[in-house]
Amino acid sequence: MRAVILAAGAGSRIRPHFKEPKPLIKLLGLSLLERSILTLRECGISDFVIITGCAEKEIMASLGDGGKYKVDITYLHNPEWEKGNGVSAAAFKKISRPQEKFILTMADHVYSLETVKAFVQAAAGIGHEEILLAADKRLDRVWDLPEATKIQSEGQRALRLGKALSEYDAVDCGLFIGTEALLQALSEAVNRQRYNLTDAVNLLASQGRVKLFPVEADWVDADDLASLRQAEKILLKAALPDKDGLISRTINRKFSLPATKVLSKTAITPNQVTFISFLAALAAAACFILQQPLPGGLLAQLASIIDGIDGEIARLKFLKSSYGSLFDSILDRYADFLIVTGMAWSWFAKIESPAVLLISAAALAGLPMSMLLKEKYHTLTGKVYLPGQDDGFLELLPANRDGRLFIIMLGGVLNWIPAALVVLAAITHLQAVGRLIRLRKLL
Amino acid sequence: MRAVILAAGAGSRIRPHFKEPKPLIKLLGLSLLERSILTLRECGISDFVIITGCAEKEIMASLGDGGKYKVDITYLHNPEWEKGNGVSAAAFKKISRPQEKFILTMADHVYSLETVKAFVQAAAGIGHEEILLAADKRLDRVWDLPEATKIQSEGQRALRLGKALSEYDAVDCGLFIGTEALLQALSEAVNRQRYNLTDAVNLLASQGRVKLFPVEADWVDADDLASLRQAEKILLKAALPDKDGLISRTINRKFSLPATKVLSKTAITPNQVTFISFLAALAAAACFILQQPLPGGLLAQLASIIDGIDGEIARLKFLKSSYGSLFDSILDRYADFLIVTGMAWSWFAKIESPAVLLISAAALAGLPMSMLLKEKYHTLTGKVYLPGQDDGFLELLPANRDGRLFIIMLGGVLNWIPAALVVLAAITHLQAVGRLIRLRKLL
Repeated sequence: MRAVILAAGAGSRIRPHFKEPKPLIKLLGLSLLERSILTLRECGISDFVIITGCAEKEIMASLGDGGKYKVDITYLHNPEWEKGNGVSAAAFKKISRPQEKFILTMADHVYSLETVKAFVQAAAGIGHEEILLAADKRLDRVWDLPEATKIQSEGQRALRLGKALSEYDAVDCGLFIGTEALLQALSEAVNRQRYNLTDAVNLLASQGRVKLFPVEADWVDADDLASLRQAEKILLKAALPDKDGLISRTINRKFSLPATKVLSKTAITPNQVTFISFLAALAAAACFILQQPLPGGLLAQLASIIDGIDGEIARLKFLKSSYGSLFDSILDRYADFLIVTGMAWSWFAKIESPAVLLISAAALAGLPMSMLLKEKYHTLTGKVYLPGQDDGFLELLPANRDGRLFIIMLGGVLNWIPAALVVLAAITHLQAVGRLIRLRKLL
Repeated sequence: MRAVILAAGAGSRIRPHFKEPKPLIKLLGLSLLERSILTLRECGISDFVIITGCAEKEIMASLGDGGKYKVDITYLHNPEWEKGNGVSAAAFKKISRPQEKFILTMADHVYSLETVKAFVQAAAGIGHEEILLAADKRLDRVWDLPEATKIQSEGQRALRLGKALSEYDAVDCGLFIGTEALLQALSEAVNRQRYNLTDAVNLLASQGRVKLFPVEADWVDADDLASLRQAEKILLKAALPDKDGLISRTINRKFSLPATKVLSKTAITPNQVTFISFLAALAAAACFILQQPLPGGLLAQLASIIDGIDGEIARLKFLKSSYGSLFDSILDRYADFLIVTGMAWSWFAKIESPAVLLISAAALAGLPMSMLLKEKYHTLTGKVYLPGQDDGFLELLPANRDGRLFIIMLGGVLNWIPAALVVLAAITHLQAVGRLIRLRKLL
């Protein structure tokens, strides 16, 4: 399936604030148009048609042939872009194929990846005589409702659309599965000198041919500064991983998300962030060895916070990679081992006792157990182990990485290193044994 | 697809040596008939028809309705079993379905799982007017060639079959994909008073309707004591895992296979063996702590050998389970940690130095790295990490479990515990870093 992106308008409301044309405005490190393309690429789309208007040259210079995004981009210029976005969409007719279904979207609309994924999957259920339109029925969640295109619907179908509808129950999200029916309606509307996409969609709606797809997550039509800020918020929230531990959710993300907001605008890569987190852990270990438990504990917590940033940037900038995931999880193990070895050393320097050796060994042995069990479960079942769901009451043990590093932080800050090591050993092995017992039933 | 197993004959050559009828003779813990059923079950077959003759009651009492094997068994009695196995095979016609393809095999033939898997997959390529016959062209590998049914073939087709053929290039392995064509040929042969399966197959062969499937692994028609012993050898060899480390291949298996041969005849389960291996490791750790490095090292090697037996028994007796695999790999990690902690303790008792702590911590940290990297690779790619293939020159490091426990054994036996810990730390981390570098290209 090809995607057609309308990037022809002038963006007059936003133009004074930026030197670039609207589709090239950067949001968290990616231009609006780049983000549209990369979001659709994640949904399996590799063939793009961009309809340009007032900023043709700048857009072509910025995106090129799509090679750097591993997609194909074809440009179509609409010299009459000022008339309305219906004329721009109609331009696609020149190169459309018989019975072609295509995604039609706007360069300046920002959606979460999950919304677009679900929408693209729904394309299969659409016939050639109708179209699919993403619609948000959560009216209290819609950003800038007065400016939005409203929809009056009946069941799964739109009856009519318009900015000034008095009765409506949904809002047009600017995301379509287009068919020949849409292209015909666009021609018809343009012939009647109705130049907006909504005019053509209204024609189809009056014939009961506009099916609605319910959008369940926040999105925004970014056409002024406030909506750009809202788009950043939505994207940052969507960059959180599905499953987070308690410490990560309540503490770490409060720091990591603002850091990600800043760092995503730089060229720093997720693997570089992973390495910086490892260096923080190394510094923590050095502090413990140098009998400086306070900075040691704080640096361990810092490593834990930075450990969240690599993933956030990777999801936000479409930089996720298998190697990144491997590199992150192995470096995390080394970071853990180094910090706990540093704590053991600092304790040992005060008390040269076999008990120190045994407790330290038990703590070291417990560190990789959570990952070992989760990965083995994954390879055996093909399913990701979700602590929040699969751990049952074991979830209360702070034995995942965010919990372990929090205990290390407390041990350092309170200068209770022996206690921290005992607790680490206890909870990690309790979790491992508990999981072994639980999985006996689940596997 | 249903499987039809011929279990009607008397097994006269073997009868005097056993109190049970031939299909119920036990081989490495499973009767011949049980093994046929479980082998086919591993290939996705769940519906069985067993043709009984002289030992109907004993067979029915032994196998029941198949519930204990999680399959369905239907019994068909052939009162004329003494005439020949063609009459037994023909009995299936009574309950066969139109256009049915079925597997036909003999209760007393023993094949490796891989052979049967490949054969069952080949069934899809067979038309209803022909049959598929497993044939071994490796004449020098055929057990008891004089007693075998020979085949003269041309390309992929059999021309004629018989025990006394003077010209032949293959041997009938007793494994068929049967079709209506086979059932018709059986009726025809029986009507002509030709009562052997080979008579019917010869009829089809003369019409070019017997396609041959090349068997590439050893198999045996177990009809005397010597061939039963040969069957044991074949099965034990097939119970080895695909990828073994050098120490495992050259040392451990020399001990584990004979132990498996004995233990498979008992009711011991693979998980129990896993636990015994863990106890041996625990004993090794205790010996190190008690300053008895010689028995400590030997017990570590014993744990390594026993660690091979659980898998061998599981594969041999169709007892593989996800939980067993998880239990084994987690207990192995604990065993490793305990032994190395014991070694660290014994060294520390002599020299209370921070160097002991650091080297021990490095050795402990290295222990789980091989598994962590392999499992993570598996979850990321969906492919099993094969050290022999994916490690390149890193394969030379004895950093997998068999190699690590061998180093521990040497450290104990030679009383060079510090050296063993240094080597362990060095090779495990070298392997981890080496794999991280190699996988940067592969992932």
